[in-house]
Amino acid sequence: MKKYSQIFQGTAFSAKSPKEIQILKDYLFFINTNGMIEQIVAPEDADYPTLLEAYQDQDNFHRLTEGQYFLPGFVDLHVHAPQWAQSGTALDIPLYDWLNTYTFPLESKFSDMKFAQEVYQDVVSTLLANGTTTALYFATVHKEASILLAEICAEQGQRGLVGKVVMDHPENNPEYYRDRDTQTALADTEEFIIAVKELAKSTKQGVYPVVTPRFIPSCTDEGLQGLGALAAKYDTYVQSHCSESDWAHGYVQDRFNKNDAFALHDFGLLREKSVMAHCNFINDDDADLFVKTGTAVCHCPISNAYFANSVIPIAHLHAKEVEIGLGSDISGGFSPSLFDNARQAVISSRMLEDGVNTTLPAEERGVPNSRITINEAFYLATAGGGESLSLPIGRLEADYAWDAQIIDTTITSAKLPIYQADEDLHDVFQKIMYLARPENIREVWVQGKKVHSRMS
Amino acid sequence: MKKYSQIFQGTAFSAKSPKEIQILKDYLFFINTNGMIEQIVAPEDADYPTLLEAYQDQDNFHRLTEGQYFLPGFVDLHVHAPQWAQSGTALDIPLYDWLNTYTFPLESKFSDMKFAQEVYQDVVSTLLANGTTTALYFATVHKEASILLAEICAEQGQRGLVGKVVMDHPENNPEYYRDRDTQTALADTEEFIIAVKELAKSTKQGVYPVVTPRFIPSCTDEGLQGLGALAAKYDTYVQSHCSESDWAHGYVQDRFNKNDAFALHDFGLLREKSVMAHCNFINDDDADLFVKTGTAVCHCPISNAYFANSVIPIAHLHAKEVEIGLGSDISGGFSPSLFDNARQAVISSRMLEDGVNTTLPAEERGVPNSRITINEAFYLATAGGGESLSLPIGRLEADYAWDAQIIDTTITSAKLPIYQADEDLHDVFQKIMYLARPENIREVWVQGKKVHSRMS
Ligand SMILES: [Zn+2]
Ligand SMILES: [Zn+2]
Repeated sequence: MKKYSQIFQGTAFSAKSPKEIQILKDYLFFINTNGMIEQIVAPEDADYPTLLEAYQDQDNFHRLTEGQYFLPGFVDLHVHAPQWAQSGTALDIPLYDWLNTYTFPLESKFSDMKFAQEVYQDVVSTLLANGTTTALYFATVHKEASILLAEICAEQGQRGLVGKVVMDHPENNPEYYRDRDTQTALADTEEFIIAVKELAKSTKQGVYPVVTPRFIPSCTDEGLQGLGALAAKYDTYVQSHCSESDWAHGYVQDRFNKNDAFALHDFGLLREKSVMAHCNFINDDDADLFVKTGTAVCHCPISNAYFANSVIPIAHLHAKEVEIGLGSDISGGFSPSLFDNARQAVISSRMLEDGVNTTLPAEERGVPNSRITINEAFYLATAGGGESLSLPIGRLEADYAWDAQIIDTTITSAKLPIYQADEDLHDVFQKIMYLARPENIREVWVQGKKVHSRMS
Repeated sequence: MKKYSQIFQGTAFSAKSPKEIQILKDYLFFINTNGMIEQIVAPEDADYPTLLEAYQDQDNFHRLTEGQYFLPGFVDLHVHAPQWAQSGTALDIPLYDWLNTYTFPLESKFSDMKFAQEVYQDVVSTLLANGTTTALYFATVHKEASILLAEICAEQGQRGLVGKVVMDHPENNPEYYRDRDTQTALADTEEFIIAVKELAKSTKQGVYPVVTPRFIPSCTDEGLQGLGALAAKYDTYVQSHCSESDWAHGYVQDRFNKNDAFALHDFGLLREKSVMAHCNFINDDDADLFVKTGTAVCHCPISNAYFANSVIPIAHLHAKEVEIGLGSDISGGFSPSLFDNARQAVISSRMLEDGVNTTLPAEERGVPNSRITINEAFYLATAGGGESLSLPIGRLEADYAWDAQIIDTTITSAKLPIYQADEDLHDVFQKIMYLARPENIREVWVQGKKVHSRMS
């Protein structure tokens, strides 16, 4: 009899395609010692009864109770970890004031390792409690605190992809918060990459360094060039902000006479392992370049309402086969929950489709065929994120990591409105997607290990 | 020494005006036996020390602990109580299918009093747990179950305004779910009004019957006329849906050659005690008529994204001095939380201001000056709701009911990101508005009585 590290029995929801979910009713999930799903077995399969019989009395056999379901862990493709400390504040002020009065002063405080430790511990545990098993983080310009964030991910069991932020432009950044100069920015980035790669050797679920120019306006040409070279040299992930707002889009046009996508590409920053946040204003040529290079779009629906001046046409980009995942963009977005962001992704897409201005006739108001469904939003938060990162995560299938959330729909204080024992599982899925909150997330597993559980 | 039923000490947030909040730092709140706030006393007031000394050792003295705050209870102006059973489902299908495949079959089941009891118990306790102390409900066409909903509000301590829904149009409603005929609809409504007025005599926090034509398409002219007469005869509240979507707006134009507002007014349905849900497509004349008649708009931001084809211009209507409150519109809106709806109200208003279509130039994309702040959204959920209902609720001030939520920002499993003991209270307020969830709502009080508390 084969040894597994964990065996689970229960009903799971997993993305089959961008628009369809798969309902795995009462399946068995066999997890190997690497934390990977080695096989899944349906009740209809011939060996199901034998396997169940063989394993169900073991200590490592977990059977979901009535009203509990598995979801894949969420993949958050855009989190400013330090900004957790200001989440929810100052969203009523313009971007410039938000950056200069709130964000940059806050981020500059991460030279203080004690403060960094406190906030980073909190943001990682908060994301885990919200079902986020993998997160792509912006830290700050500080090398030490950025390494600390990677260490905290490693320690808490989250799959963390972490970037030391580069802001080396001497004029476009405040003096109190930027890299000393381009050489220092690149040297710090290289040391950061090496340190995180070292840490990765002892981190089962994976921890990855990410080359992270904040956005083009923050960086010099030499800085961007050097970062592209480092990404190639160490074969790392790359993240930045891309064509987020009218202002940012226009700035890059003025400086390079091209869109962000092509400018970033010139510096070697669009790669299979690149994830670009927002991308609201990319055009079809940019999108094609994303497809060609394997660059993914991170959609940040809550944040976009505050800072992106528009709704990104996700349905259109999906039709063009751009890889797309979901991001909370803490704290441009206030919520640490990808449930909240999935809901907003649907809402925003419907506003794009129907339009907003009541004084226009219906046929001039919106952009037809823009809506996405909750299935599609779920895909973005799970399988789409995994594909964006080229990692075997985001699905509950063989050869994927066992990154999972156990959702309980029956918790007294957070009972979902399910009144029939035989309620259609598509409806149960939708109720979970629209109404679940951290109380319903009873356990979170990453790479076969339980990293979060709630007693109450 | 004067006797009070309860005395509270702590910091409260309350709306000062639609755009400004008031921070009552360490105030004392004295609640009389009617559950009204008899006086509030600031630490700067001369008699504060004496009063504190005199009352602080009594059993009915409640001092908030560090990190706890008072908010006024929320006023939800639009809830379809029966639809709680389908909350979160079927939002991806068109309105017609949503009504005919999901909503009407579900509502028709409320002829079964046992099912009604189960769902209504849940929706009332769920709303209380979400901080909603007053709710304006649509029940179903069934008189008995509608009375039951009022009884459950009375029992659970929520201030409930409840309407038996009228759908008397023989062609525009499904045969399995409508009033038998116009006479029956009016007779049932009158009996319902009388029954709830009787119940009100023994209900301290108030329970009110509401004349409730579902929307113009559901009703005959005679039905609407009769309901207007009943509202006048019994001086009741009135609620309906008004100019919600392109379709509904167009239907009324076709039938009456005027907008919903004037049509409803012709039938005597716009009154000081009228609340109209959605109103996305009202024009300035309609708005003026609302002001003249004292009719309030209920903004349902989440639901509108699914079914209203647009964003209602709240800032514009506020400038015109229309009374406006907030509604969850369960289950056109999936969330029972007015926190969620306040957040979406801000987000939707910013989408209206900036526009959505990235292919348009910025200056053609949106409607300038449309954004509302989180302060304004808070106002809608509290004082705006109170004013809409012409009730002394929604503010923590003298001569208002003690309808309050106690928010704890320090709960281990739902700690808000507050890292300084002296954090600016405006920032604390914003973090609460953007990040609080039911776990943070430790106690809910209505009319001086504790009606909900959480142990874990
Ligand atoms: Zn960002
Ligand atoms: Zn409604």
